[in-house]
Amino acid sequence: MDITVAVDAMGGDHGAHITVPAALRFLRDNPDVNIVLVGLADAIAAELAAQHAATSPRLRIHPATEVVTMDESPQSAMKNKKDSSMRVAINLVKSGEANACVSAGNTGALMATARFVLKTIPGIDRPAIAKLMPTMKGQTAMLDLGANVDSTPLQLTQFAIMGSAMFSALKHVDAPTVGLLNIGSEDIKGNEAVKEAAEMLRKTRLNFQGNIEGDDIYRGTVDVVACDGFTGNVALKTSEGLVKMITTFLKEEFTRNILTRCVALLALPLMNRFKKRLDPRRFNGASFLGLRGIVVKSHGGADEIAFYWALSQAVEEARSGMIQRITEQVQQELVHLNAAVEAAES
Amino acid sequence: MDITVAVDAMGGDHGAHITVPAALRFLRDNPDVNIVLVGLADAIAAELAAQHAATSPRLRIHPATEVVTMDESPQSAMKNKKDSSMRVAINLVKSGEANACVSAGNTGALMATARFVLKTIPGIDRPAIAKLMPTMKGQTAMLDLGANVDSTPLQLTQFAIMGSAMFSALKHVDAPTVGLLNIGSEDIKGNEAVKEAAEMLRKTRLNFQGNIEGDDIYRGTVDVVACDGFTGNVALKTSEGLVKMITTFLKEEFTRNILTRCVALLALPLMNRFKKRLDPRRFNGASFLGLRGIVVKSHGGADEIAFYWALSQAVEEARSGMIQRITEQVQQELVHLNAAVEAAES
Repeated sequence: MDITVAVDAMGGDHGAHITVPAALRFLRDNPDVNIVLVGLADAIAAELAAQHAATSPRLRIHPATEVVTMDESPQSAMKNKKDSSMRVAINLVKSGEANACVSAGNTGALMATARFVLKTIPGIDRPAIAKLMPTMKGQTAMLDLGANVDSTPLQLTQFAIMGSAMFSALKHVDAPTVGLLNIGSEDIKGNEAVKEAAEMLRKTRLNFQGNIEGDDIYRGTVDVVACDGFTGNVALKTSEGLVKMITTFLKEEFTRNILTRCVALLALPLMNRFKKRLDPRRFNGASFLGLRGIVVKSHGGADEIAFYWALSQAVEEARSGMIQRITEQVQQELVHLNAAVEAAES
Repeated sequence: MDITVAVDAMGGDHGAHITVPAALRFLRDNPDVNIVLVGLADAIAAELAAQHAATSPRLRIHPATEVVTMDESPQSAMKNKKDSSMRVAINLVKSGEANACVSAGNTGALMATARFVLKTIPGIDRPAIAKLMPTMKGQTAMLDLGANVDSTPLQLTQFAIMGSAMFSALKHVDAPTVGLLNIGSEDIKGNEAVKEAAEMLRKTRLNFQGNIEGDDIYRGTVDVVACDGFTGNVALKTSEGLVKMITTFLKEEFTRNILTRCVALLALPLMNRFKKRLDPRRFNGASFLGLRGIVVKSHGGADEIAFYWALSQAVEEARSGMIQRITEQVQQELVHLNAAVEAAES
């Protein structure tokens, strides 16, 4: 099946300078993908010309006359920029002209617009942000990563259901293992919301493994990690900071003196392989789950390679029938959950 | 000033096999420290004999007939084991016979017992767990790391005050910078408790820098990071898991084939220096703040080197007059805060 991706060409810190070259490269590598570049027609055409490229049946320009800035409030973006590249790209998903959209724009505005235009899946209160994280065993889907704070037990349960469906669809795993992010099992066993969510999750038919702790994320203990957006965001950003510190320390040791610099030369191929395994660009592309359409958020500061990976994430989601899977699983689990709650009450 | 440390010799996964050799080594390196080994007299004497060591004026055995197990509930430990090595070690701090105590025992039981025996500082509702974390710039005090969940804005403010006093005392810094751990500043600006805590912190005379994000921890953006125990615990354990994953990946690359193994040999001194900078054993020793005495919790699985560092942390705290500093700063800030709140209301 051919997949069409709508790209918010103006989003992110670098706009068309990054999104257009990334789109061109992605089209070369993926012959069954079409891309619609949404944004200021002149800017996109200029970037295409700079890249010695032209539009084609596989690469269209869809004009949009406005751009949401990176620090604009979602309210302002929604109210004042109805013809923004971000919104028009989402409109194309809504109308069915595109199977997915990708934006490196302002997260808050993207989430608010996506929710307004696409609407949520029946049974989902609020969308969540999910990401496939690298682990010692492979990958783990983690959500929410910052769309929601002070999540209720029901929301945490919804995150687990959506994450399970996402992992199922993308990784072709029947019953992914699900863990609830919690703290030390000694005395304190988590906050109230997490405790109640665990009880609720035991009533679903998910492959729920109970509580996990922070170190289980990278250990790959479970396929899906459900958590409140506050905690998830802190865990994700703490990880980014730690990787940065560790690579800085490594670099310092390798450049300490003439001897270590020689070792560094010899170790270059090996270190490059190592760096590639941790390269955050390869994990760029956070998915907004719970919407009636695919929206992938690229990091705002993404370079061409990072944006390429966000496009790849969107295409994989479109190909896997993820939205259908999430919709069905939410439906089934909610029916099941409601029945269990009613049975317990009667 | 000579410092006396009471060691819960039976605590942790390995008990006296680890605590006694660590104590002996610590005494050799620190001529102005005395240690009291608290626990089953026979077991301690046997371990001393195995180490070809004996008691001395600087190394006493203080018998205690019971041991709190690692999975025992705090309630059971408090009620049934009044002569436990953990409790008796804390009693020695209470009576003034020791300046600090160190235990690798069960965190929940240690916290409950310490709180019961030592009591909290006036103005502190609940103690917090703090740790000096390695950063790109040096070290940062972070708290709470898991003693409290669902912390109120006032508790978060108390953590910030205590952390600031701790950093001041240990690092000889007059007005340490303080940050409140929060999430992306785009749309959502944190949960309710954090928002209110920020307002409260602006009314203190702390050197409050506002919100920080997860990546700021290791960047060393501030000297003190205040956060809810749930978030702090997840951030800490996520970091532990990530360091493990990264070092495993590095090892895999270095042992991939005969060539990389040769490079590994050459890189050994360099990698050892690198590993040392991240070695979690060097950062062993979490401090219970808010008590009227020094209690340092070692990791339960600590080896001799790790336990040695926990002893070192306790001695530094005792020498720095940290408890006095925290007590005064809590007092001053609370008076100031109450005055500000009253002025605002009148």
